[in-house]
Amino acid sequence: MTVNAELYTEVQQYYANQMRLLDNLKIEDYAATFTPDGWIEHAHRGERAEGRTAMIAGMYAALPRYKGVVVRHWFDHLIVEPSDDGSLKVSYYTLVTRVNKEGHVVFEPTFTIDDVLVRIDGKLHTKSRYIIKDTPAE
Amino acid sequence: MTVNAELYTEVQQYYANQMRLLDNLKIEDYAATFTPDGWIEHAHRGERAEGRTAMIAGMYAALPRYKGVVVRHWFDHLIVEPSDDGSLKVSYYTLVTRVNKEGHVVFEPTFTIDDVLVRIDGKLHTKSRYIIKDTPAE
Amino acid sequence: MTVNAELYTEVQQYYANQMRLLDNLKIEDYAATFTPDGWIEHAHRGERAEGRTAMIAGMYAALPRYKGVVVRHWFDHLIVEPSDDGSLKVSYYTLVTRVNKEGHVVFEPTFTIDDVLVRIDGKLHTKSRYIIKDTPAE
Repeated sequence: MTVNAELYTEVQQYYANQMRLLDNLKIEDYAATFTPDGWIEHAHRGERAEGRTAMIAGMYAALPRYKGVVVRHWFDHLIVEPSDDGSLKVSYYTLVTRVNKEGHVVFEPTFTIDDVLVRIDGKLHTKSRYIIKDTPAE
Repeated sequence: MTVNAELYTEVQQYYANQMRLLDNLKIEDYAATFTPDGWIEHAHRGERAEGRTAMIAGMYAALPRYKGVVVRHWFDHLIVEPSDDGSLKVSYYTLVTRVNKEGHVVFEPTFTIDDVLVRIDGKLHTKSRYIIKDTPAE
Repeated sequence: MTVNAELYTEVQQYYANQMRLLDNLKIEDYAATFTPDGWIEHAHRGERAEGRTAMIAGMYAALPRYKGVVVRHWFDHLIVEPSDDGSLKVSYYTLVTRVNKEGHVVFEPTFTIDDVLVRIDGKLHTKSRYIIKDTPAE
């Protein structure tokens, strides 16, 4: 909870760049923002991609779902917590829009994300991304 | 207009935590982020809850409206203005989503919020929250 | 990519104020946040307003479109890059809501914006705004 402003700004800019890569379907460049052994887990689907190669394969397989639309990931309420080992625990809200050629916007469900960021040669990389679909209690 | 980055970051993290409490229906913990005499006013409904006890009662009464949905409050365009007495005037936009079990998202009207934040033992607390529903001029 | 936190905060507050002027239809005040020779281009419409006078005329002409609704511009993923000449290249995502008297929210298409900000007497002003409608590849 005692993140300083310089680090908070760095994390925001990191995500601003990472999301441009994801949203513009720069798949290999997006994967390169993760550590080589990084993973992404969609908790609600019980689905986990480990390592950049698996991520890239999964994203190419999903491409047909994004035909004819532009996806944008909107973040909010970023919480950054530095750990003793120098890694960062980051949590945030995500809203996802899809807009088609006619300009019609539709929304995916909302999500809450838990990331761990680490540095490689001083630059932030995502070590893990745990994606929770916001689901009402029974 | 002369807020520094450290304070701006602190305020952002404060709201990131406060909204997680509200959105996850941690009602008592949310009320504890206000001063004991803090108040929330919904200007458009002419409705005001004064003090944590009134807030908590009001939120429990409203719970049935949130059955079967997850609410998320999205903030933007935060303006932080420190006052001479050490309190902070904060203004921001709010977008509110509700997502149901099937992942369908609906939106509440947009709002503009005016808060006053003060410190108790060094930690930020909300002293007042004035909620304006964005309403077109006649 | 080496923007510091103080500058990043200043830019965020600048936009927070600028968008309040735009969204509350303070047309002359909004135009005054641009340099006298500033321009706004809607790339997808091939439409460009050069200078404050042209901006103001264009906004008054567009006013009937906003009758009965309140517009809000939501920003995300701000990237700030200082140039050698002291100007700032800024890029961000924009989501635009319109809410009517009944509280019903509709969305415009999503946009990506490229601004150049410069200082006049130390205060940030927008020198140019290039607006790209997010459009799927064919």
